[in-house]
Amino acid sequence: MPQKKVVATKKVSKKTPKKDYGKMAMALHKKLKGKLEVVSKGRLLTRDDWSTMYSPGVGAVSSHLAKHPKDAREYTMKRNSVAVISDGSAVLGLGNIGPIAALPVMEGKCAILKEMANIDGFPIVLDVHDVEGIVSAVKAIAPTFGAINLEDIAAPLCFEIEERLKAELSIPVMHDDQHGTAMVVLAGLINAAKVVKKEFTSLKVVVIGAGAAGRAVTLLLLKAGISNIIVTDSKGIIYKGRKDLAGYKKKLAETTNPETRQGDVLTAVTGADVVIGVSGPGTIAKVHVAAMAPKAVVFALANPVPEIMPEDAKQAGAVVIATGRSDYPNQINNSLAFPGVFKGALDRGVNHITDEMKLAVAKKLAGLIKKPTADMVIPPVMTPGLVKAVASVIK
Amino acid sequence: MPQKKVVATKKVSKKTPKKDYGKMAMALHKKLKGKLEVVSKGRLLTRDDWSTMYSPGVGAVSSHLAKHPKDAREYTMKRNSVAVISDGSAVLGLGNIGPIAALPVMEGKCAILKEMANIDGFPIVLDVHDVEGIVSAVKAIAPTFGAINLEDIAAPLCFEIEERLKAELSIPVMHDDQHGTAMVVLAGLINAAKVVKKEFTSLKVVVIGAGAAGRAVTLLLLKAGISNIIVTDSKGIIYKGRKDLAGYKKKLAETTNPETRQGDVLTAVTGADVVIGVSGPGTIAKVHVAAMAPKAVVFALANPVPEIMPEDAKQAGAVVIATGRSDYPNQINNSLAFPGVFKGALDRGVNHITDEMKLAVAKKLAGLIKKPTADMVIPPVMTPGLVKAVASVIK
Repeated sequence: MPQKKVVATKKVSKKTPKKDYGKMAMALHKKLKGKLEVVSKGRLLTRDDWSTMYSPGVGAVSSHLAKHPKDAREYTMKRNSVAVISDGSAVLGLGNIGPIAALPVMEGKCAILKEMANIDGFPIVLDVHDVEGIVSAVKAIAPTFGAINLEDIAAPLCFEIEERLKAELSIPVMHDDQHGTAMVVLAGLINAAKVVKKEFTSLKVVVIGAGAAGRAVTLLLLKAGISNIIVTDSKGIIYKGRKDLAGYKKKLAETTNPETRQGDVLTAVTGADVVIGVSGPGTIAKVHVAAMAPKAVVFALANPVPEIMPEDAKQAGAVVIATGRSDYPNQINNSLAFPGVFKGALDRGVNHITDEMKLAVAKKLAGLIKKPTADMVIPPVMTPGLVKAVASVIK
Repeated sequence: MPQKKVVATKKVSKKTPKKDYGKMAMALHKKLKGKLEVVSKGRLLTRDDWSTMYSPGVGAVSSHLAKHPKDAREYTMKRNSVAVISDGSAVLGLGNIGPIAALPVMEGKCAILKEMANIDGFPIVLDVHDVEGIVSAVKAIAPTFGAINLEDIAAPLCFEIEERLKAELSIPVMHDDQHGTAMVVLAGLINAAKVVKKEFTSLKVVVIGAGAAGRAVTLLLLKAGISNIIVTDSKGIIYKGRKDLAGYKKKLAETTNPETRQGDVLTAVTGADVVIGVSGPGTIAKVHVAAMAPKAVVFALANPVPEIMPEDAKQAGAVVIATGRSDYPNQINNSLAFPGVFKGALDRGVNHITDEMKLAVAKKLAGLIKKPTADMVIPPVMTPGLVKAVASVIK
């Protein structure tokens, strides 16, 4: 989720995390010298080991796969491997910092895939940055992998890249910044509606931020039956007829903002039931929350510094508040979704992650909270059985 | 090394391996479901784990690398990772069987890298097969890796691909079928010359087979000071002026065959001290060995079925015989070289594998045998200290 500067929490945040995670992370990364290791499942101690793990025995496996390529699921690592791919153009809130600087983040995602779902994730950071180049590279290396996780690729390129790859590859392709976020937001919102006792599909929602996450959240909420959604970008409300709109924002204008409101964020949020910030620190003020309908729901997801601090949102009248942070209640964390989504897809040989699956994941996640409260609309990432539950609906 | 069919040993070989390694390999691969696993070096059990392995702490590491990309060696897996890359166009002796069928072989090479040299190798099998496509894909994914091992890519494309990548990337790129083979052959030949008490640089050498391995062996032997080398292809001796020659074979004709011999394999080998087969079963007959100079050296490297069986070569007068097989003395095995070469290159941040390094590796390998004998011109792959010794000369 967007943010301005990862390490600058002290100046902006009123509740500074007690620990300097940046410093701790630098020390840990230096100690580990990379977070991932590629290990062999078989030993090479005897001549028989060598002759079966490798030549000449491996020739029989290759010959078999030349005739029966689908059996790669049985005889190779393809069945359980996910490429975590980024060109480094939109990393965390750091922006376009390039592939090398993106590598620690991608290694981290792979560590999460392994630790949570026993998936063999491998980071591929790309030194190409145009749609054609990225699509070509990913298609070229796809045979090794059972699925593709796109990550931290800037909008609007990420949309075309994902669409192209979904159409041109027969393995699942998911841009997690979009769909991971959307699934978890929807899950939280399903429970938030219960807490504030409002009909889910009647919620008036404002999405602050029209990047990769903002678009995906909007589209999934529409799919889930919410019809009144207003999206804002840095220039204000997106509406049909706004002259500077092009591409995906123009399309968003056609399916959102049924009242064709025009103006700034205050105009957008006035009377809204839900505000979802997927932009950056400071874009939601107390006055905005105060202008919302009673029992306001505020998801302020910029990380680590939210659009509005939870204390401020509460003071201004918000009843349910979620952030991307682990030190407040209701952490909207992509790791709730993507490990289980890929687990299910790999285990069942699913070729595409559909909107129906995303809706099912959100419902499943929401259902893991039996009695939602203002401080518990979404399960914590270390919930036992989480991955299995999510994976179970990917089919 | 080239061969006709990996599983058809029974019909051709006089000394059939007692074990059915093909069957054993199929069972092992099915049991393992892929030979590699990507594991996390750090756990994700506490909130601190999450915050240092991943967000928000990882942002500090990314910010640092954005300013100091060279520090990727200290903070990421790049420093110890090697991509083992193939398009599946020349796999073992199976030919152009495609990327999926090549995957078990590449996984095997990665297993060897890990087990022998603690290197994190990852197999990338490519669904592109032209020079431009392969070069583009490898360059695109290079940032994750500390070195590139090209593997089982058909000649002559492999030559241009390797040259391009060496010129356009700043990490080591090595096509192991070429240079791994060449280094180990040279090592064996250095000791074989001692055994037959002939001056190394005065050896008359015939290379049977002008593919990737044949060309690389020839070029490295020339570099090592042997001036009289004849190369043959399926049409006979390669000589300056042969009308069908083009590309790299034409170049080979210019630097080999100083007597400009013309004709078949028998003409080539008559009076030769050394014959090196890098072609396929049956291309060297007893009559060829009998026509060689006294104390003949025969390296019959097609695998698993050599150009001539060691028993036949011996009967025809050969004194030193090497093959690619582990069930005969003197196994010419690429695994003697490539793990140590990459280990040295990664540990010392070497940018290119030079001819001088290849010569040094060969000498080092040869030197591991204190007193060479006809049955011991090259060390076995499980020699203690092997990788360290090879790595020590990559600098």
